[in-house]
Amino acid sequence: MAEESQSLPLADGAVTLDADRRRRCGYPEVVYGEGKPVEAIAAVFAAQLQRGEPALATRVDPATAALLSEQFPTARPNALARTVRATPEGWTPPVVDGRVAVITAGTTDLPIAEEAAETLAWMGVAVTRVSDVGVAGPHRLRERLAEFESATAIVVVAGMEGALPSVVAGYVACPVIAVPTSVGYGANLGGVAALLSMLNSCASNVAVVNIDAGFKGGYLAGLIATRSGPR
Amino acid sequence: MAEESQSLPLADGAVTLDADRRRRCGYPEVVYGEGKPVEAIAAVFAAQLQRGEPALATRVDPATAALLSEQFPTARPNALARTVRATPEGWTPPVVDGRVAVITAGTTDLPIAEEAAETLAWMGVAVTRVSDVGVAGPHRLRERLAEFESATAIVVVAGMEGALPSVVAGYVACPVIAVPTSVGYGANLGGVAALLSMLNSCASNVAVVNIDAGFKGGYLAGLIATRSGPR
Amino acid sequence: MAEESQSLPLADGAVTLDADRRRRCGYPEVVYGEGKPVEAIAAVFAAQLQRGEPALATRVDPATAALLSEQFPTARPNALARTVRATPEGWTPPVVDGRVAVITAGTTDLPIAEEAAETLAWMGVAVTRVSDVGVAGPHRLRERLAEFESATAIVVVAGMEGALPSVVAGYVACPVIAVPTSVGYGANLGGVAALLSMLNSCASNVAVVNIDAGFKGGYLAGLIATRSGPR
Amino acid sequence: MAEESQSLPLADGAVTLDADRRRRCGYPEVVYGEGKPVEAIAAVFAAQLQRGEPALATRVDPATAALLSEQFPTARPNALARTVRATPEGWTPPVVDGRVAVITAGTTDLPIAEEAAETLAWMGVAVTRVSDVGVAGPHRLRERLAEFESATAIVVVAGMEGALPSVVAGYVACPVIAVPTSVGYGANLGGVAALLSMLNSCASNVAVVNIDAGFKGGYLAGLIATRSGPR
Amino acid sequence: MAEESQSLPLADGAVTLDADRRRRCGYPEVVYGEGKPVEAIAAVFAAQLQRGEPALATRVDPATAALLSEQFPTARPNALARTVRATPEGWTPPVVDGRVAVITAGTTDLPIAEEAAETLAWMGVAVTRVSDVGVAGPHRLRERLAEFESATAIVVVAGMEGALPSVVAGYVACPVIAVPTSVGYGANLGGVAALLSMLNSCASNVAVVNIDAGFKGGYLAGLIATRSGPR
Amino acid sequence: MAEESQSLPLADGAVTLDADRRRRCGYPEVVYGEGKPVEAIAAVFAAQLQRGEPALATRVDPATAALLSEQFPTARPNALARTVRATPEGWTPPVVDGRVAVITAGTTDLPIAEEAAETLAWMGVAVTRVSDVGVAGPHRLRERLAEFESATAIVVVAGMEGALPSVVAGYVACPVIAVPTSVGYGANLGGVAALLSMLNSCASNVAVVNIDAGFKGGYLAGLIATRSGPR
Amino acid sequence: MAEESQSLPLADGAVTLDADRRRRCGYPEVVYGEGKPVEAIAAVFAAQLQRGEPALATRVDPATAALLSEQFPTARPNALARTVRATPEGWTPPVVDGRVAVITAGTTDLPIAEEAAETLAWMGVAVTRVSDVGVAGPHRLRERLAEFESATAIVVVAGMEGALPSVVAGYVACPVIAVPTSVGYGANLGGVAALLSMLNSCASNVAVVNIDAGFKGGYLAGLIATRSGPR
Amino acid sequence: MAEESQSLPLADGAVTLDADRRRRCGYPEVVYGEGKPVEAIAAVFAAQLQRGEPALATRVDPATAALLSEQFPTARPNALARTVRATPEGWTPPVVDGRVAVITAGTTDLPIAEEAAETLAWMGVAVTRVSDVGVAGPHRLRERLAEFESATAIVVVAGMEGALPSVVAGYVACPVIAVPTSVGYGANLGGVAALLSMLNSCASNVAVVNIDAGFKGGYLAGLIATRSGPR
Repeated sequence: MAEESQSLPLADGAVTLDADRRRRCGYPEVVYGEGKPVEAIAAVFAAQLQRGEPALATRVDPATAALLSEQFPTARPNALARTVRATPEGWTPPVVDGRVAVITAGTTDLPIAEEAAETLAWMGVAVTRVSDVGVAGPHRLRERLAEFESATAIVVVAGMEGALPSVVAGYVACPVIAVPTSVGYGANLGGVAALLSMLNSCASNVAVVNIDAGFKGGYLAGLIATRSGPR
Repeated sequence: MAEESQSLPLADGAVTLDADRRRRCGYPEVVYGEGKPVEAIAAVFAAQLQRGEPALATRVDPATAALLSEQFPTARPNALARTVRATPEGWTPPVVDGRVAVITAGTTDLPIAEEAAETLAWMGVAVTRVSDVGVAGPHRLRERLAEFESATAIVVVAGMEGALPSVVAGYVACPVIAVPTSVGYGANLGGVAALLSMLNSCASNVAVVNIDAGFKGGYLAGLIATRSGPR
Repeated sequence: MAEESQSLPLADGAVTLDADRRRRCGYPEVVYGEGKPVEAIAAVFAAQLQRGEPALATRVDPATAALLSEQFPTARPNALARTVRATPEGWTPPVVDGRVAVITAGTTDLPIAEEAAETLAWMGVAVTRVSDVGVAGPHRLRERLAEFESATAIVVVAGMEGALPSVVAGYVACPVIAVPTSVGYGANLGGVAALLSMLNSCASNVAVVNIDAGFKGGYLAGLIATRSGPR
Repeated sequence: MAEESQSLPLADGAVTLDADRRRRCGYPEVVYGEGKPVEAIAAVFAAQLQRGEPALATRVDPATAALLSEQFPTARPNALARTVRATPEGWTPPVVDGRVAVITAGTTDLPIAEEAAETLAWMGVAVTRVSDVGVAGPHRLRERLAEFESATAIVVVAGMEGALPSVVAGYVACPVIAVPTSVGYGANLGGVAALLSMLNSCASNVAVVNIDAGFKGGYLAGLIATRSGPR
Repeated sequence: MAEESQSLPLADGAVTLDADRRRRCGYPEVVYGEGKPVEAIAAVFAAQLQRGEPALATRVDPATAALLSEQFPTARPNALARTVRATPEGWTPPVVDGRVAVITAGTTDLPIAEEAAETLAWMGVAVTRVSDVGVAGPHRLRERLAEFESATAIVVVAGMEGALPSVVAGYVACPVIAVPTSVGYGANLGGVAALLSMLNSCASNVAVVNIDAGFKGGYLAGLIATRSGPR
Repeated sequence: MAEESQSLPLADGAVTLDADRRRRCGYPEVVYGEGKPVEAIAAVFAAQLQRGEPALATRVDPATAALLSEQFPTARPNALARTVRATPEGWTPPVVDGRVAVITAGTTDLPIAEEAAETLAWMGVAVTRVSDVGVAGPHRLRERLAEFESATAIVVVAGMEGALPSVVAGYVACPVIAVPTSVGYGANLGGVAALLSMLNSCASNVAVVNIDAGFKGGYLAGLIATRSGPR
Repeated sequence: MAEESQSLPLADGAVTLDADRRRRCGYPEVVYGEGKPVEAIAAVFAAQLQRGEPALATRVDPATAALLSEQFPTARPNALARTVRATPEGWTPPVVDGRVAVITAGTTDLPIAEEAAETLAWMGVAVTRVSDVGVAGPHRLRERLAEFESATAIVVVAGMEGALPSVVAGYVACPVIAVPTSVGYGANLGGVAALLSMLNSCASNVAVVNIDAGFKGGYLAGLIATRSGPR
Repeated sequence: MAEESQSLPLADGAVTLDADRRRRCGYPEVVYGEGKPVEAIAAVFAAQLQRGEPALATRVDPATAALLSEQFPTARPNALARTVRATPEGWTPPVVDGRVAVITAGTTDLPIAEEAAETLAWMGVAVTRVSDVGVAGPHRLRERLAEFESATAIVVVAGMEGALPSVVAGYVACPVIAVPTSVGYGANLGGVAALLSMLNSCASNVAVVNIDAGFKGGYLAGLIATRSGPR
């Protein structure tokens, strides 16, 4: 296990890359970009691509995204999601039988939903997006049932009262990963209202991740999809 | 305004009855029975019945309910709701055009829903009960839409994630009074999760009252119903 | 029900307009303007006006309000309320018997109160404004009792200790919709103190909406007013 | 300062009596009776009475109160307040010019109000009790204005929304000590709602003590009264 | 869809059984036994067994468990888990390729872990129990790595600081369902400390359910296992 | 009571001045300057000075303070306190026997302490400032005991752990008004830690006001001082 | 490291004893007795005594303490602390140069203080108890300075406002371990007020443990004492 | 004790330096630089250096750090830690036998960890830094065990779920000072999640300081190290 950690030399010190992570966890490390200098992110990308692994950075500001796109020809930035991902030359994604739906209540929840969808794309998992189906317009969700009822796992992203995961979960048999968002004001308490609502879901098939944690929501759904057999 | 307050002599002191309340508020005072001795409740009932007003007590324990039922021939106790109401001899309820639906998610929310329904009955408002239509079984609510879609106002009682008011409100045009309950455990925080969920409802027609406040939910819906014109 | 959802093509994607909403809910959709680009708001306005429906946008910043006013000749911006509303050519508002009073404690609560009042105007409901009648100057509210005691519903907007709804509710028989505001500092906890105060009101006729939810407060009072018969 | 602390021998150890307290603070120590054995309370009473000081114990259960009453001929138990006080033989209370009013919203707040009133009696301060004047019946407080408007200080005891101190303070010039109580349920959060409401009072003359702290409310009002000059 | 809901006649009214649930969700309804009379639970059990479905009740007190065991020959009560499950005569469990590990930090977390394990058994999923491997004894978890590293999904049950899911998740690639418990005192805030810890896990593969929600933790892991293909 | 309210015409509407306030409350209204335009503050100042009353504005930014100082020759701005006060020509302050000490823990608490001191100066009450005597340097407070032990009332301003009021109160017999500040970071929760600490003071003579409420702290102490007789 | 874990056979299963703990941590495992059957505690005691290690159980109810005392001749129960400790035959405690003072504010904090003191005794550390020196009687602490100022570490146990650790820390140079207690009521929030106060201490030498965590407070102070060199 | 406080004259008033502090506490005062003018910090530095004491300022912005570095030749600024320290000419640090390890979970926690390390350097204590060993990569901590297992005390700095102190504490016998950071988002609640996690640690040797309190964490570990004897 001599190769477990790889130290990347940088101007401001070094980033320790968990080089063993793919063996242990199935997927390489993802860069949480918030406040990280572009050099640090680029160093991780370069190392991962060289090892033949796809790279993903989240919470990336527009300037950083532009610089990464310049430097890495395969980089695919997503401005709404605030992500950048890149694949090694000639990359063939793994074959995944499972399929994930990403469902959102309102347009203000889209950035977090896109972060989940980009994570799934990086994992090689097929994604169906179902947007703007908040519970206050009940026919909207039913109209689109066919698009998500056979998914292997579903990510539901919702702010405000956070009721959508419970409603979605009532229609399906698969695991639902609920991602509360900080969308709302006043008694939403920065997303805590939606979080509590989702934790208390009367539906048995709802698990919850942190507020605004689009990456984690997508990653968990992706892990379920990659474990699934042919249906 | 000499008659505004009426003092009722009691063994342990006196209860001040707000005798002007009916003129000012439309309905006489209701006794919150929690921790009150039966003599105090009975004194209010006697005074109100003598004045030709219907009486209502909430949060009444079984022993107190039994004693009130013995003492007042017209008393109607409701064990589930923990209420007792009584009408003067020959009482004719007011004619109310509006109609209220009381909707609950699960059976554990029924005591609070019944408190709301009893309050409406005391106000002379017709009530439709729609129970056990929680959001995790989405067809259940739709199957019963006809029973509540033409109501003048709706009381929705729900614990856990408190999502039902938002879903109901998406189907109807009338005001929805949401009553969170303390039903649930853990991160329900004694009903705070449901309360926050309801306050953050994305539906525009949802107003909220205190946790477990069945009386207040029913009373507000009743006030709306009694204001409504013929439809 | 083929026409339930109408998709509006936009530069950045599309806005799904809930075109069935007016039939289902009595009033068309309202645009929550926070963070929305002016094009998205304008597209909704154009579609609604073309369908013969009045339009309303809330939480609109001054620049967006100016652009909407330029584009829509009937637009009426309200800078204090941060709203813009517009009516179709030759619009005749519905006849509403009910009347709503909007009452505020202090001048800092006025923006939220104006949001409520603009919502009511958009619904075609007559509004009486009663301002600056905080509980610390008790004569001020009494002096103006005649202006609000016969209202069909009352919206009370208050920050800090949030006591005004309880006091107003003691004078009237109609439903009171309490809107807590985030006005205050320190232990007001961003409006939570006023919110809790209103939820615990000892007056039976007080329902509560989210902190700073002027739109929802106005909308609920408007729904009650439009249900009311001639008095 | 050799006499500052007096050790009282007891079966279970010893109670250290702060014998210097009267010189330093104006009044001797008060026994907080919760969970204290009757012997410990009696030992303090005996020592204080022997020193010519009046004694007071709060949060005393009925059995303890009965035992203290047996042992000390001048003991005056107050069951509602859960207090016992006793005076030395031939005790002449100090002459205090100030006068304090103790005002309560509802009957359930009376135990805490009585604790405040008993504390004032122990301090030799004249008390006016004004009860059952909650804000939901606004005329009730005004009817009794004459009884409290010339007080030197006022203690206002209120649970639920805790609005009464703000309303009282709007009528008077003197300091108001607000005592929140844990009366209520649900979103009252064990008295926190009333506490926050009082801390955010828009009236300038309201200071606050802990939830259910009747003793402290009375003591502070008493200190103000004993400092007051002839009026 | 005539058969969607089945009404079960009972002494105290009726229980509405969501008879369509198995088709829609893959598994029949589970009875949350807290506060339910034994007759209500027995009626559901009888109906489900007659339909050829296995039955499960959670949060069952010992007396109720004994009565159910008497009435249903195949009933298997688990006193630690507070559950009872029963299978139809000649029941053959479904073949599930996936395997779930249930891991606990301390012995006080065992009741919740057993609730998860019983739920998995009811679903026909093979369970490996790994107990008493709290983070303060780091070698204990490592010693047992072989028992859980190839699981399809893992349930980690932990109170106090709730650190175990993060540590377990660092060793494995599969989804980890974290169940916080209310075990602890003081600043554990009834399990909120563990809940927050788990929601903030730096491991990407951790999703969370409600405090003490052993059933939900087991059910979600079971859904993942039943979706998994042969490995 | 025709003169109770005085309306001041302004560009942006009108300010309603509570002209009866001095009769009712002993002191005229104080302007809370946060977010108020300088014209509104100046209008109140002009009206009050013309009526022969001293004026005070709090939470005034430097630019506004400069403009008020230009316009009113008697204006005395205090940059640290963020206040401006002004007196009528030839103003003679009332004779007040009481004396107030304003005590602070650290230099960062000084702005709030100065707000209290300016309020007292406006009321005509003599103030003693005792600064930088935090509990971590215990000798510092004792060294200055002579400066505050004979005060009629004491204002103690402290952030962080908020322990100073309890310690000060142990040395004196007079009422202590505790003002928590938002000074600190992390678990100070914006001043809530200090607030809770002060509310739970084991000293009987401590009352509390809102976080950062220097004005209210000073005002209450001033009311006590003006009630006090010659000592 | 074959001997790391020792399994103890018991009626209800087995307790896994962390037999390596003493080597790794310096002290053997301590039994947290809350809810544990006496047999489980006795099994650990027997195993530890046989290994020549002293045993300690905390949170032990009186009946369990009595049974342990019967079974183990060297058992020393402490009813106030709710602990039992026992030493092997012929046990010689380690020689520890450091000395710890355990200081409490009020008598109600004594059980937690005793838990700390018993833990220190079990570790072989000399303890000085300083009780009843709350901050409201400032001379009391100063009078006893000599007893604690040369301690190697100090445990300060306090409820209510939790100010005592800050005050003690101002007098000494050594580390102070602050133990908040749940003593108090209302806004003490079950000890959270004291906890926050201690975390925000302006004294640099104060670290904090959980509410009511007397064992942990004593253990940490003991670890510091056993590391200390001769002074 | 005439020299206890030294007043430093400054443009904006004076800073009172606690000149007795070194005798009483072992170390001189440290300047908390947040919001302090550079002149005030420089005055303290000058006075301390002149007295032969090393100086330390924390929370210093870059501009202030640059100015201090210019003015004091021995100044050593640390940009990451936001600290500046300076030593008197010819300063010989004290000989300290103890050694402290500072351990961090992620790179975003480094500023707080560096603040701790700088504090230890100022105290003359040898520091070992162990970074980027978060619990999600379990091998990383174990790989570096040799670097910290013989430390006299350990400072563990961690945000998010705050699990690292518990895990570290399981490997060592010495006291662990846990410093929660505000690193994270959503349900981390500004560091409260990590704080609660650390307070509830199942490891007995973990004490906690305030969120982001790097200085205090380092100072406490330093006090333990300076008390330790030769090992």
